[in-house]
Amino acid sequence: MFNIALFGAGRIGLVHAVSIASHKETCLYSVVDPYQVNAEILAQKYQAKIQTTEEAMSDPDVHGVLIASATDTHADLIELAARNNKMIFCEKPVHLDLERVQQCLAVVKEFQVPLFVGFNRRYDPQFRRLKNLFHAGKIGKAESLIITSRDPAPPPAEYIRVSGGMFRDMTIHDFDMARFIIGEEPCAIYAQGSNLVDAAIGAAGDIDTAFIIMKFPSGAMVSIVNSRRSGYGYDQRLELHGEKGLLTAGNIKENSVELWGDNGCLSAKPEHFFLQRYREAYIAEWSHFVDVMAGRATPETTGSDGEQALYLADKALESLLSGKEIKL
Amino acid sequence: MFNIALFGAGRIGLVHAVSIASHKETCLYSVVDPYQVNAEILAQKYQAKIQTTEEAMSDPDVHGVLIASATDTHADLIELAARNNKMIFCEKPVHLDLERVQQCLAVVKEFQVPLFVGFNRRYDPQFRRLKNLFHAGKIGKAESLIITSRDPAPPPAEYIRVSGGMFRDMTIHDFDMARFIIGEEPCAIYAQGSNLVDAAIGAAGDIDTAFIIMKFPSGAMVSIVNSRRSGYGYDQRLELHGEKGLLTAGNIKENSVELWGDNGCLSAKPEHFFLQRYREAYIAEWSHFVDVMAGRATPETTGSDGEQALYLADKALESLLSGKEIKL
Amino acid sequence: MFNIALFGAGRIGLVHAVSIASHKETCLYSVVDPYQVNAEILAQKYQAKIQTTEEAMSDPDVHGVLIASATDTHADLIELAARNNKMIFCEKPVHLDLERVQQCLAVVKEFQVPLFVGFNRRYDPQFRRLKNLFHAGKIGKAESLIITSRDPAPPPAEYIRVSGGMFRDMTIHDFDMARFIIGEEPCAIYAQGSNLVDAAIGAAGDIDTAFIIMKFPSGAMVSIVNSRRSGYGYDQRLELHGEKGLLTAGNIKENSVELWGDNGCLSAKPEHFFLQRYREAYIAEWSHFVDVMAGRATPETTGSDGEQALYLADKALESLLSGKEIKL
Amino acid sequence: MFNIALFGAGRIGLVHAVSIASHKETCLYSVVDPYQVNAEILAQKYQAKIQTTEEAMSDPDVHGVLIASATDTHADLIELAARNNKMIFCEKPVHLDLERVQQCLAVVKEFQVPLFVGFNRRYDPQFRRLKNLFHAGKIGKAESLIITSRDPAPPPAEYIRVSGGMFRDMTIHDFDMARFIIGEEPCAIYAQGSNLVDAAIGAAGDIDTAFIIMKFPSGAMVSIVNSRRSGYGYDQRLELHGEKGLLTAGNIKENSVELWGDNGCLSAKPEHFFLQRYREAYIAEWSHFVDVMAGRATPETTGSDGEQALYLADKALESLLSGKEIKL
Repeated sequence: MFNIALFGAGRIGLVHAVSIASHKETCLYSVVDPYQVNAEILAQKYQAKIQTTEEAMSDPDVHGVLIASATDTHADLIELAARNNKMIFCEKPVHLDLERVQQCLAVVKEFQVPLFVGFNRRYDPQFRRLKNLFHAGKIGKAESLIITSRDPAPPPAEYIRVSGGMFRDMTIHDFDMARFIIGEEPCAIYAQGSNLVDAAIGAAGDIDTAFIIMKFPSGAMVSIVNSRRSGYGYDQRLELHGEKGLLTAGNIKENSVELWGDNGCLSAKPEHFFLQRYREAYIAEWSHFVDVMAGRATPETTGSDGEQALYLADKALESLLSGKEIKL
Repeated sequence: MFNIALFGAGRIGLVHAVSIASHKETCLYSVVDPYQVNAEILAQKYQAKIQTTEEAMSDPDVHGVLIASATDTHADLIELAARNNKMIFCEKPVHLDLERVQQCLAVVKEFQVPLFVGFNRRYDPQFRRLKNLFHAGKIGKAESLIITSRDPAPPPAEYIRVSGGMFRDMTIHDFDMARFIIGEEPCAIYAQGSNLVDAAIGAAGDIDTAFIIMKFPSGAMVSIVNSRRSGYGYDQRLELHGEKGLLTAGNIKENSVELWGDNGCLSAKPEHFFLQRYREAYIAEWSHFVDVMAGRATPETTGSDGEQALYLADKALESLLSGKEIKL
Repeated sequence: MFNIALFGAGRIGLVHAVSIASHKETCLYSVVDPYQVNAEILAQKYQAKIQTTEEAMSDPDVHGVLIASATDTHADLIELAARNNKMIFCEKPVHLDLERVQQCLAVVKEFQVPLFVGFNRRYDPQFRRLKNLFHAGKIGKAESLIITSRDPAPPPAEYIRVSGGMFRDMTIHDFDMARFIIGEEPCAIYAQGSNLVDAAIGAAGDIDTAFIIMKFPSGAMVSIVNSRRSGYGYDQRLELHGEKGLLTAGNIKENSVELWGDNGCLSAKPEHFFLQRYREAYIAEWSHFVDVMAGRATPETTGSDGEQALYLADKALESLLSGKEIKL
Repeated sequence: MFNIALFGAGRIGLVHAVSIASHKETCLYSVVDPYQVNAEILAQKYQAKIQTTEEAMSDPDVHGVLIASATDTHADLIELAARNNKMIFCEKPVHLDLERVQQCLAVVKEFQVPLFVGFNRRYDPQFRRLKNLFHAGKIGKAESLIITSRDPAPPPAEYIRVSGGMFRDMTIHDFDMARFIIGEEPCAIYAQGSNLVDAAIGAAGDIDTAFIIMKFPSGAMVSIVNSRRSGYGYDQRLELHGEKGLLTAGNIKENSVELWGDNGCLSAKPEHFFLQRYREAYIAEWSHFVDVMAGRATPETTGSDGEQALYLADKALESLLSGKEIKL
């Protein structure tokens, strides 16, 4: 049984607490959150301790840490955990600044602790199945990948201001997905964007609608379609065209009930947001990390995956600002 | 080039006129209809003669007749055509009275003219494809067939009064479809019905909603689901379960456009009614009849198919009235 | 916190153990199963006691019993629990013999304990949603209901022998569903059946394929389509036609991935069987029973629902054997 | 009745001959094709004359010309027709060279004859319906348009050599569609491409797989996804995201039959190619041109639409070759 200290008792912390508590090899040992009320709710629910960062990091009974705190604390906590020899599960991103990421990963390397970066979508059963069928040769060589990723509704502008911008906050998942599916590093990137959804996002210096094209050494290309708003639920789809055909991974609808009448057939929207759509993915990624802690696996998604996705986000921004394709 | 005399210039006559005129081996030679206005419209459109029944039947230039007139004239016209050695395409049913059908078919047999009875649904590309895949062994032996057949909206009660009742007018198509798909004659039939759609139909002594079960010697069973009203277009589906799986033939939607929003996804209804849904079937059945006239085929759907479907309609009515399963 | 004694540690017992243990107001207190190995596995997993029937029934710390044991033990256990003042959740059916059911329910009534009969499908989110939309008036008055219920593969013939026959074992769920949706008691029933799937089922005196028609006082009709085998997963669908349109509740597919190629589009089967399809239903029905135990609700599905469904099963069998429609 | 001279009796000429002959206000008067065999087949089928270019252009009985000949003859024939006062329907493109297009359109303007350029997809009922629903305000302001256009299989490399390249030959339809739907002129364009499908296409100096992004003054963006090969039929889809939701126009499947078995559900591919998918569009665009000839309408798609689409193709090529976004 691995004792886990959870950093961050907010929305995503709650999701992970469920996974930790449900897994038969892990136990929610302690909760760390500067916002005491949240920490107490979680701690009480799972009969866990409340600890300070220092207590948790120095507690020899803590085997692993799950970092789900504010983005700007990730790198510091990773380094602290590494120096204290804790195994590390960290929500994406490692940090919004690429250099800081690299420093941090150097520390992790020095102390040789396993670090898993939580790109949860890699564990979505739909996307995983698509990847497996692709690798089984069902469509031959990859030619075109279209990633659609649209949130149901935009976050508040205050969030946008600390988010690092659309590419580092939202598209970063799609950069990772492109690398995960294609299995190569892209050699060119181009980004175009607009502020259409919420003027406050534009006022905060960001875009809310984006199209990105990447080219890979094999000639395969990836198109990413992003928006901070769909109006019809969380839109998360993959379309992978290959030599012999097409693999698609579609949305999961909220229900299977249809109403047929004079106006046509009304069926359900896609599941609302990431808590619903990626519920199974959160459980599966935790299960993988438990395998890592138990020595049965090495992290499938590492700090270097986090670094590479951030690098692509930076380059996408460079393309957007310069109006040029960027060679990588 | 076969010259065709068309009896009946109403709605279904118009459909057949298009098929006759479009086929490169047939010509709409003349139109016969007691309602002169209809006859003239059709005759002018296709530069055809207007003839009386007697003129058409005795005209040596008429090679074939297409009988699309009022139901109670079918048997008389068939006999007259047979005696005049014309090849006969007759809309279903031959007659509403089984004995009259048998007399009529005896005359056809005596004069040895080809008679094709227009069970158009056998020529629907969807149903035909389902049958072909079944015969190709895709699902093994047939076990259960569910036939859904629902009109978009009920006909006027005046029509109901001369229709011969729901089973002889509407379900007759489904009886024929069951025989067409299963390829056996049923050995038992049960019918249940209600008057739910329009009280005027009940007042006219008929039902408008019906469920029928038939059993076949092989043990296969057929369920027919009928209604004079769907509220969402013309609902025409087959579901054939076999040893190894299921074949379904679904509706064709009016279009492929979807509107996704807050309420879900709105897509199109099935095509409105038989003129739309069975457009291709009407062309295909005519093409088959031309093959018959040219000696390249024998009628796939004969008077005896018409007789058998009517027999099942009669027995369904007997079951409905007696509340008993009828052995056949 | 309600302490629950679970009778039966087989497949369905395991399902319920998960629900009991996961619910924050219930605790799996003890397991009762004559087959000791099963009892031990469950008891160990959930740190529960192992008890004999007598121990559990007389233990004052047991607040409720969940009866998931062999069918022929249900009525005896219900009576014992009632006499010991335990709240009762019993898997369907109460008993295979209608008279025995009635005796048993009389005892329950005498001791005034709540009894919930586990017709899990009423708690399926799809069916529940269909019912709610129907009650909200979306399609007006009900006219036709088609219930499709097909198992992926037949059970062994040994099971068939003790099952009470297809209608009492399998169709009983559909009889309950018909009553649940339509909200009336049927006034006539007809059943037709065949032995097509497995000759051993026929040798055991049962059928494996059935069509049933019921008529209700309002004129609404229900058609049930049953088979012990689908060949493509667990096929569980409702189609409810009303005055203004149609409500359908379809299957849930195993995944949303499609493979498009030369042969067409290959998509996933429905979820395999009841453990997958009705996973959420089992949780929801347990949640309802907890509300009952806590005095926040009365049982939505009672012994009399169990009795009525069994009555319809008996009458369906009478119809099948006599070849007659049975008035109810 | 308008007499039409048809230039070009090849594959697309045949399609138009059907439309001309079927329309009640037009007659296929003559066929012009240097390849005599093709001309004769068509002329005989429709009882039309065979004429030389000069004969047709100077024949006062010819009211309109339909130019479906080799691409490099279009501009010359348009000018000739304009000088002879014929009304002109010309297949896209007017010419592969933008300057030549402009000269040609100047001649058309001088002689004031109506010129319709055959961007057939504007007349596809699915795309037209999507546009109408968008204009009716169903999704508010347009934000993102994704155009998927993939041929079933690549053309021979010989064709590629005279095609003007992928953007001028294939993507030109999508440039026109983007302008048709969005209703603005784009202000920036970026193109990325690969040679993945057939090495012979690369050897001919062309690409066969392309992603294009355009930005419009309103901030709306368009993504075009192109390939010379799908492996699963003709893939023609639109996805238009707006303020309030999404409109999609999907493929039409070859049939509605599904086969369910152990491996899942197999359904049909999209209709094979443009002759099938755009059959109705060809009829509808001809019907519009007849309205133009009869003075009931002015051309919805003009020479300047042809010019603008070609301009975008040229700029896409410039982007591809330079690796830069091009401002327009």
